[in-house]
Amino acid sequence: MLVEGIHFDLSYSPLKYVGYKAVTENVSDIYAMNAKPEQIIVSFAVSNRFSYEALDELYKGIYEACADYQVDLVGGDVTSSKLGILLSITVIGKAKKEKISYRNSAKTDDLICVTGDLGAAYMGLKLLERERKIAVETKSTPDWTGYEYILQRQLRPVARKDIFNFFQENDIVPNAMIDISDGLSSEIIHICTQSNKGARIYEDRLPIAQETEKMANELGISPTTVALSGGEDYELLFTIPVELKDKIKENQQIHVIGNITDKPEDIYMIAKNGDEIAIIAQGWNSFQQR
Amino acid sequence: MLVEGIHFDLSYSPLKYVGYKAVTENVSDIYAMNAKPEQIIVSFAVSNRFSYEALDELYKGIYEACADYQVDLVGGDVTSSKLGILLSITVIGKAKKEKISYRNSAKTDDLICVTGDLGAAYMGLKLLERERKIAVETKSTPDWTGYEYILQRQLRPVARKDIFNFFQENDIVPNAMIDISDGLSSEIIHICTQSNKGARIYEDRLPIAQETEKMANELGISPTTVALSGGEDYELLFTIPVELKDKIKENQQIHVIGNITDKPEDIYMIAKNGDEIAIIAQGWNSFQQR
Repeated sequence: MLVEGIHFDLSYSPLKYVGYKAVTENVSDIYAMNAKPEQIIVSFAVSNRFSYEALDELYKGIYEACADYQVDLVGGDVTSSKLGILLSITVIGKAKKEKISYRNSAKTDDLICVTGDLGAAYMGLKLLERERKIAVETKSTPDWTGYEYILQRQLRPVARKDIFNFFQENDIVPNAMIDISDGLSSEIIHICTQSNKGARIYEDRLPIAQETEKMANELGISPTTVALSGGEDYELLFTIPVELKDKIKENQQIHVIGNITDKPEDIYMIAKNGDEIAIIAQGWNSFQQR
Repeated sequence: MLVEGIHFDLSYSPLKYVGYKAVTENVSDIYAMNAKPEQIIVSFAVSNRFSYEALDELYKGIYEACADYQVDLVGGDVTSSKLGILLSITVIGKAKKEKISYRNSAKTDDLICVTGDLGAAYMGLKLLERERKIAVETKSTPDWTGYEYILQRQLRPVARKDIFNFFQENDIVPNAMIDISDGLSSEIIHICTQSNKGARIYEDRLPIAQETEKMANELGISPTTVALSGGEDYELLFTIPVELKDKIKENQQIHVIGNITDKPEDIYMIAKNGDEIAIIAQGWNSFQQR
């Protein structure tokens, strides 16, 4: 369920992107179970502030995403709201029982992998906030040159259908998997807690895009913090047996960032300087000296 | 999708009933396809006006309905809203392909049947509106004695699982079926338009409960109008071949009210005085002299 003013801001995001992102967020949860999204049901409530054309834009984004993820829009509801716009999406996916990945089955010594790169969506959001402030103060139009990637990651993220397909083609079933919607720290904690395991990850292996790093530096935040705690990346975090190391090496989008250990809830990061830093909670300030 | 202030009014309806009714409305659509509801996904957005206890009441109603309809609550989402409460429900049902009833397959000479009785939910709503006005003016507490049935039909309607079961036990597959959520007239028009047929129904066969009739008379509305155009009954309207007449006679909850004809969109009611009255559109004033 996505609520205007809480989950999205129409002064930042065109409705078409809101529609696309809403579908991405939902199919991402299905991919994260190693399953194929097949059908989608979209309902929304809108106030009379929205024109027919506006809703048409929203649908355009939804249909574009349905085409990209090859899911069928099979139903839904449109109704009035008293305030703003609200979307509710249900996705139905399919998988063979033995191929489903859960969060609770990480095994000791598993490799911890993430796809793509981390923290970009959050830097995109910070950029939008900064530029809006400047635009209001100087009555100018923002120039996004050099920030296209982080903007796109915030406004129109793409779920990892490609990784799902790669798993099917190579007969890989991750022992545990989750999508990174609330930040890497938070998701690693989910997997470890539910699997009753610990984890060790390496700071120097965290995949961070150049633009993400640049924006983090401009804001005076550590890029590592952004990678660990920035949300909305819709990348996949998964664990696989060490034997599969060579298989996944073929895919440039997959990065091994650490290992699962047998010490429950002992979750930490080896920093670039060799320090061990405990990963203790979700959200900002999610790690501290161990 | 159900929005506070649009689909329900918490000054009339306890949250427990809102939850129950929301599930009823959704499973009713599945029964109306001669299918079995199996799983339900419930999401809601709530403002900080609602306490934990209030949400607990809502869930109680939802779980009660899930138990009654034997469906599993398998997922959902809870998020914040800027104003009031909003529910979105998805139901997944199951049926053998050849047993599904659609709206577009009514056959000429089919018997038109409705379950239960009509118009009660609408009279319940009118009663609530009237009594609230009186309560405000006189600062008194309403007395619902003698109106329990129509109140219950408005606040906590029950979907026709019993009729679905009766169909399965007797191997009946209606040629066409729909649930009566917007009023009988409107639903007959749906079936006829989509089946490219006409319909003839008889005023004296419309099932109307005593309390519904009493309330309609108090308000100076014709009980027939209420039966044709009152919404939210969640009864089933269906058509079956004449040969099945004896089979359905066994079920006291099923009433034959007319027949399907081969004249597309020629939909009318034979009034008690013999007049033929065209049923032309949904909502109030939905019929006129033919």
